[in-house]
Amino acid sequence: MSNINIKKLAQELNLSTATVSRALTDNYQISSETKRRVLELAKSLNYEPNPFASNLRNQKSKTIAVIVPEVANHFFSLAINGIEEIARKRDYHVLIYQTHENSETEIAFTLKLLSGRVDGILISTSGETNNKQHLIEASQSIPVVFFDRVYEDIEGVKIITDDYESSYQAVQHLIEAGCKKIAYLLALHNLSTGEKRLNGYLTALKDNGIPFNKNLLVTSTVDSNQNYALIKNLLANNKPDGILSSIEELAFPCYYACRELNLNIPRDIKIISFSNLDCAPLLNPSLTTITQPAFEIGSEAAGILFKIFDKKCFEPNETRVLKSVLIKRESTAV
Amino acid sequence: MSNINIKKLAQELNLSTATVSRALTDNYQISSETKRRVLELAKSLNYEPNPFASNLRNQKSKTIAVIVPEVANHFFSLAINGIEEIARKRDYHVLIYQTHENSETEIAFTLKLLSGRVDGILISTSGETNNKQHLIEASQSIPVVFFDRVYEDIEGVKIITDDYESSYQAVQHLIEAGCKKIAYLLALHNLSTGEKRLNGYLTALKDNGIPFNKNLLVTSTVDSNQNYALIKNLLANNKPDGILSSIEELAFPCYYACRELNLNIPRDIKIISFSNLDCAPLLNPSLTTITQPAFEIGSEAAGILFKIFDKKCFEPNETRVLKSVLIKRESTAV
Repeated sequence: MSNINIKKLAQELNLSTATVSRALTDNYQISSETKRRVLELAKSLNYEPNPFASNLRNQKSKTIAVIVPEVANHFFSLAINGIEEIARKRDYHVLIYQTHENSETEIAFTLKLLSGRVDGILISTSGETNNKQHLIEASQSIPVVFFDRVYEDIEGVKIITDDYESSYQAVQHLIEAGCKKIAYLLALHNLSTGEKRLNGYLTALKDNGIPFNKNLLVTSTVDSNQNYALIKNLLANNKPDGILSSIEELAFPCYYACRELNLNIPRDIKIISFSNLDCAPLLNPSLTTITQPAFEIGSEAAGILFKIFDKKCFEPNETRVLKSVLIKRESTAV
Repeated sequence: MSNINIKKLAQELNLSTATVSRALTDNYQISSETKRRVLELAKSLNYEPNPFASNLRNQKSKTIAVIVPEVANHFFSLAINGIEEIARKRDYHVLIYQTHENSETEIAFTLKLLSGRVDGILISTSGETNNKQHLIEASQSIPVVFFDRVYEDIEGVKIITDDYESSYQAVQHLIEAGCKKIAYLLALHNLSTGEKRLNGYLTALKDNGIPFNKNLLVTSTVDSNQNYALIKNLLANNKPDGILSSIEELAFPCYYACRELNLNIPRDIKIISFSNLDCAPLLNPSLTTITQPAFEIGSEAAGILFKIFDKKCFEPNETRVLKSVLIKRESTAV
């Protein structure tokens, strides 16, 4: 092994050791001109990388982690399938970890992953609290791509859907079907995702001259029994004629509460939900949904993660927005 | 540190070093009498364990892996929740890995796990092939517990449900509802699980004097489009008056095929499925199910895995059988 190391190359070229190291590994962040200068000098001085350090640096787990709130949620199981399709082509394994919307669990596990057991992380955050430090730390340590449930104020690549527009369109659809008293089942309100869905609802009401009624806003919890009680209470005491549910988990409780209170869907009340439930067309009545392109979100997110691995061109703070589709079914029929 | 090591203790007591080592870590395989002798001598000779060796030996990843065919399947997502409840109490993380019923994927990942990244594995096998070598290898290397989808001829702890009885009871229910031409949607036939479900069907037919008709046996594949075509073909060309679906994934295709062919459930055809679908009561018509205690299977399996970690008493080749429940709904109504 020659006596030339990265430090000496850096001194000679008046560059930082980090820059030289990145230039030698063909990192996208380094200009072609700098790469050329570094490689020329390295060659002329017979620089050979320290094989041990190089091995360590190139050690790949060939594994990526997906962190999601729940695997039983159809949006996430489809997104995971999209991620796996891309990973399979690259011969990578995909580890799944569910946080059950618990931020402590998310924090503990995210930080644990930084010890090198995976090459990168795809995460849809729990949104239980506003604690984001672990996400910032993770994205500064290893490649991370955020999808669907994101914080806009954290730097990084994000793949989301048109939440504001979808929500707006859903309210418009309910109004066109004759609804005048539209309730909103709120979730994810700590996240940009939830904020945009709520804003779509509020703006659509405003644009249609319907004043906002805070009694029609139900803030969901992580406890499904409590959510059922909240929805039943809404239907019994402030009966709306339309409901927009901002997450799929709240659609079934609406159906059960309507049965319990002898309310006919869609005659007495119309229901629409953000949802990727595969049984939506088979329900009684079939459920109108805002269906996110879940599989595509997963494959898009994984595709970018592999671009980061390959040090190919990508925008480090890019947000890609995919379009959801409103699928009209019996639950909002006139 | 004293000069007394395990080897010296073993010589003194005329025991193997392995036995002494196990006695010192309170292993269940060592008798109380031997443990007492070892501990007494260790104390009298001021034996102190080598902290470095001890650290290595006790190094825990505090992580367990769950390998399942699909997370979108409600049985598995509930079982995973059961596993996680137990793991959380022990401060363990649970990594989930899905094989999509692909045995190559299952083999590659199972063998990868043996390098120490997890302390134990809970697995429900894909059953795509009869290749079991990786399962045998895994269970000889680290603690493994099998659940639901198992091979009876592999040694190890297994948590299953009463598949034969459940299937028998389902056919009996269809016959009592007036069915005379009962089709069976076969899956998992390489596994003991699938074999028992099929045998329950065959025996119930026989006990009721109904001859087996091979045209009413549909062998499902891993391709959902193909399964839909097979079921539609069955309904169009050999119309049964009852269907027993041996896995939850085949229930929706039955509903769609009946719609397509204008067959009314339950008037023209009655349907019952092994299933943990949470939407079963909300379907049109609501679906009669054989519901496995999925959460309990998961927590039971995880409970035993932690017993193995703790070297507490367990039967190394034990099979625990939990009971499923037949829930009658509209799809099999008279």
